[in-house]
Amino acid sequence: MTFPHRHLLGIEALRPDEITVLLDLADSYAALNRQPDKHADALAGLTQINMFFENSTRTQASFEIAGKRLGADVMNMAMQASSVKKGETLIDTALTLNAMHPDLLVVRHPHSGAVDLLAQKVNCAVLNAGDGRHEHPTQALLDALTIRRARGRLHRLSVAICGDIAHSRVARSNIMLLGKMENRIRLIGPPTLMPAGISEFGVEVFEDMKEGLKDVDVVMMLRLQKERMDGGFIPSEREYYHRYGLDEEKLAFAKPDAIVMHPGPMNRGVEIDGTLADDINRSVIQDQVEMGVAVRMAAMDLLARNLRLTRTEAV
Amino acid sequence: MTFPHRHLLGIEALRPDEITVLLDLADSYAALNRQPDKHADALAGLTQINMFFENSTRTQASFEIAGKRLGADVMNMAMQASSVKKGETLIDTALTLNAMHPDLLVVRHPHSGAVDLLAQKVNCAVLNAGDGRHEHPTQALLDALTIRRARGRLHRLSVAICGDIAHSRVARSNIMLLGKMENRIRLIGPPTLMPAGISEFGVEVFEDMKEGLKDVDVVMMLRLQKERMDGGFIPSEREYYHRYGLDEEKLAFAKPDAIVMHPGPMNRGVEIDGTLADDINRSVIQDQVEMGVAVRMAAMDLLARNLRLTRTEAV
Amino acid sequence: MTFPHRHLLGIEALRPDEITVLLDLADSYAALNRQPDKHADALAGLTQINMFFENSTRTQASFEIAGKRLGADVMNMAMQASSVKKGETLIDTALTLNAMHPDLLVVRHPHSGAVDLLAQKVNCAVLNAGDGRHEHPTQALLDALTIRRARGRLHRLSVAICGDIAHSRVARSNIMLLGKMENRIRLIGPPTLMPAGISEFGVEVFEDMKEGLKDVDVVMMLRLQKERMDGGFIPSEREYYHRYGLDEEKLAFAKPDAIVMHPGPMNRGVEIDGTLADDINRSVIQDQVEMGVAVRMAAMDLLARNLRLTRTEAV
Repeated sequence: MTFPHRHLLGIEALRPDEITVLLDLADSYAALNRQPDKHADALAGLTQINMFFENSTRTQASFEIAGKRLGADVMNMAMQASSVKKGETLIDTALTLNAMHPDLLVVRHPHSGAVDLLAQKVNCAVLNAGDGRHEHPTQALLDALTIRRARGRLHRLSVAICGDIAHSRVARSNIMLLGKMENRIRLIGPPTLMPAGISEFGVEVFEDMKEGLKDVDVVMMLRLQKERMDGGFIPSEREYYHRYGLDEEKLAFAKPDAIVMHPGPMNRGVEIDGTLADDINRSVIQDQVEMGVAVRMAAMDLLARNLRLTRTEAV
Repeated sequence: MTFPHRHLLGIEALRPDEITVLLDLADSYAALNRQPDKHADALAGLTQINMFFENSTRTQASFEIAGKRLGADVMNMAMQASSVKKGETLIDTALTLNAMHPDLLVVRHPHSGAVDLLAQKVNCAVLNAGDGRHEHPTQALLDALTIRRARGRLHRLSVAICGDIAHSRVARSNIMLLGKMENRIRLIGPPTLMPAGISEFGVEVFEDMKEGLKDVDVVMMLRLQKERMDGGFIPSEREYYHRYGLDEEKLAFAKPDAIVMHPGPMNRGVEIDGTLADDINRSVIQDQVEMGVAVRMAAMDLLARNLRLTRTEAV
Repeated sequence: MTFPHRHLLGIEALRPDEITVLLDLADSYAALNRQPDKHADALAGLTQINMFFENSTRTQASFEIAGKRLGADVMNMAMQASSVKKGETLIDTALTLNAMHPDLLVVRHPHSGAVDLLAQKVNCAVLNAGDGRHEHPTQALLDALTIRRARGRLHRLSVAICGDIAHSRVARSNIMLLGKMENRIRLIGPPTLMPAGISEFGVEVFEDMKEGLKDVDVVMMLRLQKERMDGGFIPSEREYYHRYGLDEEKLAFAKPDAIVMHPGPMNRGVEIDGTLADDINRSVIQDQVEMGVAVRMAAMDLLARNLRLTRTEAV
């Protein structure tokens, strides 16, 4: 067994060879998902609960489809409409669900660290589907798989991450994963959207897009997280697009075969030119979504194998 | 294969013999649905996504039950609460879902033509569950099956469609289907609720209920679509019931064994007398709901067969 | 067959031996739920619809997990967002769903008696998941199973039910169940939260916690139902906690091995001290949730067996 984890809380805890194990398995699930019959039984008999304290069409749908294709009983909890309103705490909610013996708990929460806290209270495997500004591990893994399939490898690449780095858990998880796999990382964005002390992470920081994109293999755009900008600097969309929005002109500074990525949902004309986003010769944005389902199938499969092992040993 | 369609977008594209194929299959599913064990595996291994941009208890439930009984993995997307709010366009949402490799996409949308547009962008089979004032094909098909079972045939019948024709996609799809099957159609309603140029469709138009209902075999009432009447004429409910609400007195002008239909949800005492709606000797309103599940099972089964054929040929 | 019921509408209709049959079966499902593979097929091929006219995370989740683990096709109807808004009546909604041939209908409704009314209109088995101030039978059954497992028996125990008795369907169903099983029941709470004429039920009534808790085996706390207190007395939370909130000091008057229960969701620091609620040596609150899934599996299994028998006889 080469994936010795009880939970998937972040990229931080993963070793490079574990990342490779997960991506290899995800590759095989990506093939399955292109078949007419998409069913496997890796999660048959198991119960998966999706607890989303923030709305997210695509991430929740991706986890739900992943679980159902593997035969799990999947339940969605819309946490806004639930007893959280009645004053119940996060921990009470977690303990309540835990008592129903789920096997896999997929959690998104607006507070950094909330998912780690929850994982300490329950007996099942917890998957972090995004917590505050902290981590979003399955997003980084699906980005990694997309890069590996498009560029043929996942090391010694030059990757630019562009835009609102400060508020982005996607950027944070990607910086860790790409760093572990020995890629060179460039962060591009206005200083106001760049986290303090970021240069300690072994990354290069740029204010200018054309300079930062020079000869990179991968261009990763980020979503402007206006909902997370509490009172601070909010750029005008027009000004932002002019300076940091990706278009053909800026992209020309990257390698000729550089790929374009975006975690979605996109603000067309703000972070990225709409035509470029749809250009399947450059953009791998749809591939990212496709790999999302495959990566989540792989992650849940690996955690479920560990669950079964642990329980067998306990008997 | 006698149902050579990739999508079910409207009645307009269907030939009479194709309608018969679908209704015959639906008949067999209606029998299955009355068994204690209601499972078949026509959609096993396939992924069905319901995208409802308008709320609809009964239609969404009907498609969901239909898919689950045939073994599909069914996922509901509540589109109001989703990233549509974050500014994502309909097409981005569709492309995102498409990248997750669904097989069947069931879509309801408030804009006429939105579902056709979406169908051009995706690889899966699309079923129109109602788009604006345009089409609602499964409703027309379930109405047809209900009529065929109650009256023993689906041709050379005289059918009255009554009420708010102008705002009704149900009326539009029914007029096309009943016309293709060679029935005589009478439209009854106030001129303000009658679409311009309707007489070109080979229908007879009446303002007076008693005159219009004379000797008909089938009386189809419509729902008053107040939510779609933008600023125009809105009748008082009391006045409307007096002139156009179906009661025993008006129904007496139809054939003695005429059946009464309503697509639901009903406004009792507005479009129809409550007691008459519940009279199982005249009203087939519950049968319509029952046939709805059967027709949707048949439609998804036929489209899935085509999907599997296409994909096999592609390999 | 020792559970000759078509519906589970309340505890009132159950005989003591029928309660024992249900709890015995629930015990075996509790064991299944602790296995890695939690699947059985008692409901395979059947359709379960959850109609919740009041929000409830835990009860709906519990019924959903119960149904899915037994192989049912489960559908949730969020009734607030549905055609109830379009003016459709409860009965029309029920008849509509009934026409789709569900086998099990789980209903929660804010009005006492609404679930009984609905059960008269449909062909399937109806389970009451709480109606107004009337009954909440699966809660009483899960409480009974929790007590039986913790204390080794379910008769000749002294049980205190504390707090807002007047607004509580949980209290009402528990008083009936515990009475049928020949336990002694003490009700403790302020006179304003005590229903009129309650002493006729063969219970003892106390205003003072320390007096009421004297030597009891089981302490059942209730949730303050502020949402059901229409204009009447609403106690301050601080004053309420001082007089009726359960803490170590008050609990010391009960038997040394008395167990502490709460149906959840808890208002910590109002009805109960948070530390005490989490003390697994005294509190069985998590066990209640766990037994909830098991009891619901048992109830649906028994009703489904009756359904199948009836339908076979009908053929």
